[in-house]
Amino acid sequence: MITGKNLVAGNWQTTSSAHQFKTFNPKTVTPLPTAFEEATEAQIDAAVVEAAAVAAHFAGTSFSERAQFLKTIQEEIQAHTSEILEIYMAESALPEGRAKGELQRTLDQIERFIELLKEGSFVQATLHTQGPDLRKMLFPIGPVVVFGASNFPLAFSTAGGDTISALAAGCPVIVKAHPYHAGTSEWVAQAIHRALKKCDLPLGIFSHLGGQSHAVGRQLVCHPLVKAVGFTGSFAGGKALYDLAQQRACPIPVFAEMGSVNPIFILENRLKSDDGLSELLAGSITMGTGQFCTNPGLIVICDPAPNSSWGVALDEKIKTMELGPMVHSNIETSYTHQISKLKTEFKELAIAPSAASGACLGSVEASYFLAHPTLAEEVFGPFSLVVHCKNAKEQLAVAESLSGQLTATLLGDMEDQQQLQALLPILQAKVGRLLFEGVPTGVAVTQAMQHGGPYPATTDSRFSSVGVDAIYRWLRPVAYQDCPNEYLPAALQNENPLQLHRHLNGVLTKAMV
Amino acid sequence: MITGKNLVAGNWQTTSSAHQFKTFNPKTVTPLPTAFEEATEAQIDAAVVEAAAVAAHFAGTSFSERAQFLKTIQEEIQAHTSEILEIYMAESALPEGRAKGELQRTLDQIERFIELLKEGSFVQATLHTQGPDLRKMLFPIGPVVVFGASNFPLAFSTAGGDTISALAAGCPVIVKAHPYHAGTSEWVAQAIHRALKKCDLPLGIFSHLGGQSHAVGRQLVCHPLVKAVGFTGSFAGGKALYDLAQQRACPIPVFAEMGSVNPIFILENRLKSDDGLSELLAGSITMGTGQFCTNPGLIVICDPAPNSSWGVALDEKIKTMELGPMVHSNIETSYTHQISKLKTEFKELAIAPSAASGACLGSVEASYFLAHPTLAEEVFGPFSLVVHCKNAKEQLAVAESLSGQLTATLLGDMEDQQQLQALLPILQAKVGRLLFEGVPTGVAVTQAMQHGGPYPATTDSRFSSVGVDAIYRWLRPVAYQDCPNEYLPAALQNENPLQLHRHLNGVLTKAMV
Repeated sequence: MITGKNLVAGNWQTTSSAHQFKTFNPKTVTPLPTAFEEATEAQIDAAVVEAAAVAAHFAGTSFSERAQFLKTIQEEIQAHTSEILEIYMAESALPEGRAKGELQRTLDQIERFIELLKEGSFVQATLHTQGPDLRKMLFPIGPVVVFGASNFPLAFSTAGGDTISALAAGCPVIVKAHPYHAGTSEWVAQAIHRALKKCDLPLGIFSHLGGQSHAVGRQLVCHPLVKAVGFTGSFAGGKALYDLAQQRACPIPVFAEMGSVNPIFILENRLKSDDGLSELLAGSITMGTGQFCTNPGLIVICDPAPNSSWGVALDEKIKTMELGPMVHSNIETSYTHQISKLKTEFKELAIAPSAASGACLGSVEASYFLAHPTLAEEVFGPFSLVVHCKNAKEQLAVAESLSGQLTATLLGDMEDQQQLQALLPILQAKVGRLLFEGVPTGVAVTQAMQHGGPYPATTDSRFSSVGVDAIYRWLRPVAYQDCPNEYLPAALQNENPLQLHRHLNGVLTKAMV
Repeated sequence: MITGKNLVAGNWQTTSSAHQFKTFNPKTVTPLPTAFEEATEAQIDAAVVEAAAVAAHFAGTSFSERAQFLKTIQEEIQAHTSEILEIYMAESALPEGRAKGELQRTLDQIERFIELLKEGSFVQATLHTQGPDLRKMLFPIGPVVVFGASNFPLAFSTAGGDTISALAAGCPVIVKAHPYHAGTSEWVAQAIHRALKKCDLPLGIFSHLGGQSHAVGRQLVCHPLVKAVGFTGSFAGGKALYDLAQQRACPIPVFAEMGSVNPIFILENRLKSDDGLSELLAGSITMGTGQFCTNPGLIVICDPAPNSSWGVALDEKIKTMELGPMVHSNIETSYTHQISKLKTEFKELAIAPSAASGACLGSVEASYFLAHPTLAEEVFGPFSLVVHCKNAKEQLAVAESLSGQLTATLLGDMEDQQQLQALLPILQAKVGRLLFEGVPTGVAVTQAMQHGGPYPATTDSRFSSVGVDAIYRWLRPVAYQDCPNEYLPAALQNENPLQLHRHLNGVLTKAMV
């Protein structure tokens, strides 16, 4: 049952004076019944203070205890699958297939971290027993604040990659629920809360706070006991949190994934025969009504023949797609506003008439694009801008002009080898993931995934927010010098009781000391 | 020969209009002959632009090419050992033993990175060939600015850990020479310059700029093409650079190691018999005239009997030490000023009369210390503050009150086990390195070393500035998706031509795909 209450370190609290808000069904534009409470200053403070109070205890739990905790979260979510799917669809208007898929993805992500904990080598134990005895490994950083994302009510929200990677690391988590799907968030928070109780862990390890205003997030990020922040959302939101965190008396890391235009470069010879390309791209641009961080917002084609028919073909494909509403009317309003602004401000930008779905395509010459840098900014939604380059050189210039991106895609033919090799190092320096086939939407949850990229795609290109490596955002190394074996964490003890891969005097081994 | 010129991407430049400055012999307080030029705005810009222009080329060099480059730097430094030692001693007044030791340490550090490059697994190649083919590894971040440190003219300066780790990573480096030892710095810069030429590498990979004013550093850190900064020095200096970097249009990481008080906790039973302890501490406090980042500035003793004689014994030991002058008269002036300020501002702080050497000890009750947080701030030099705790609880309160530190040391006896276990998690959360024997001065250059710690000890506790792991500051992951084998970097190719340890579908192996 959804209560609208805040979960403050184990207590579901209600405060008569709290500001209240409701979630909406974006399809019917009607409010849903539950009134959610905005967390008060006292609740926010209590959640963080309690998280800090239990941080050392949680850090001291074994990997298997944490794996069991994650397993229990999985089970508790699965026990309420139908309720979660129902409220997910009501709050987001996303179809059942997507709801089920995202739930499964969320459960699978948890599974990956369970495996990681069971194997254990992620703590990077490094021992040097010659000279002073030095033994280093990664330890949890302390209380983490996670902001739920608007576009993924499950996989990037309450029990999404940020929360689960932080819990796996041994860090207490305070989730700021996204107000667009506060009900979905509460169901999942209830599951985590029950899992804590079943595993007999301190309840301060997890809090779940609601709020529509920026004040809740601001107070959380500025709280002196918070040690790191995870965020997925807009550039404006991520940058504001980043700046707040840097201006603290004690600055902390903010891992803000702020999206990008994910340019697709189609090389001259590849463009000559469509061969399924426009269909593939139309699917990617409109997937999830364009609300993916990896949505391709820029298509840079090398097309020496003017007035290419390829853009027309792509536009026609897009118009045949059936799109659902966006996850919230605010997002839709913002999207519509951005499109009309583009039409007004850029005279030479041709925007094909919008289909009923709202998906549309812009078209512009490379020279005009290069002269108007704001055209390279993200339009969040099912929009993509086709940039026409007269030659390979112009395509290189467009690549050089771009800022940091989550992804870039290089689509070439055998005959495009030279241009591909010229573009490769330029794009590699600007992205987290470089594709040579397919489309950037669809982010596989594997250890080899990099979901991140140079600023402004994220605030820290050295880390990934998808895949098990996401855990490294919440860990930092500490070296023990000349420490008696009995005081060492298990991962560093002579006997290697956890059977980890460790660096021992420069050699990677599972051997004992 | 020392010229006083700036090395701008391969050209030793002189500018008639440049501001000039000289270095000093701190023992004789006389200026040394060479007039050094402050880099001009145009030179700074040219150095960075050229570094960015050659970044992709340098990033594309093989590990063995980079190892050969580092080897040649070693040889070129060794070819001028006597000149380097001579100017080192003239500019720093540090004794010959220290000069030789630091030079050897510098050469040894380079050797560690050569070994790292020869082995190659540091790029953390991770391959996932099921589903979309994803292959991720670490790539160089781009041009890095390194600030020479005042207290280590060689090991933390021009060819010190920051520069060498960045070059090993494949990042071009612009060194801002420390003005206190500009001559030593120039000799080393000449060695790096010659090594670039001998290895036929682009000369833009290394520039060396002089300057006394903050303007040079400011322009470097704010230059849009600079991608990261390494700094070892004061809190004020490091924080200023960090803030500049965060306020850029595109923020960049600053790895500032800003020192700390490195508290030593002596537990009740350990204190009962001195057993060499005061001698050991006196040596550590006065080592290098107290100019080490890991100098123990705070000694927290548990001594239920009031007026312990132990502090007196330590003070007497310190007075017998013979200390050289500090590396620059500015540092000495600042030290003297801080000591007299302590004497004036804190009535209850007993400061033993200073020995001729300038080394001295303060003494204060824990309750007074806890009420005056500024007493926990670093006094850079041969000073340490002894904090008397009446009981174990007070010692825990002092531990709780401390901010981030490079190190903490826990010295206990068999009977101190309970207190040790209580202090351990508190201190572990605040430090980069935790010692259970000995003293924190002396930072072993091994992979298991962690030289770093939570803010304000450094600006990024997740990285180390000593040991081969220092390379991770200059690398970021990029994933290649569905990339033809021939376009992949060697580390990611099917054949595993570099014979690296790689994560292949979750298993650590040297196997081919």
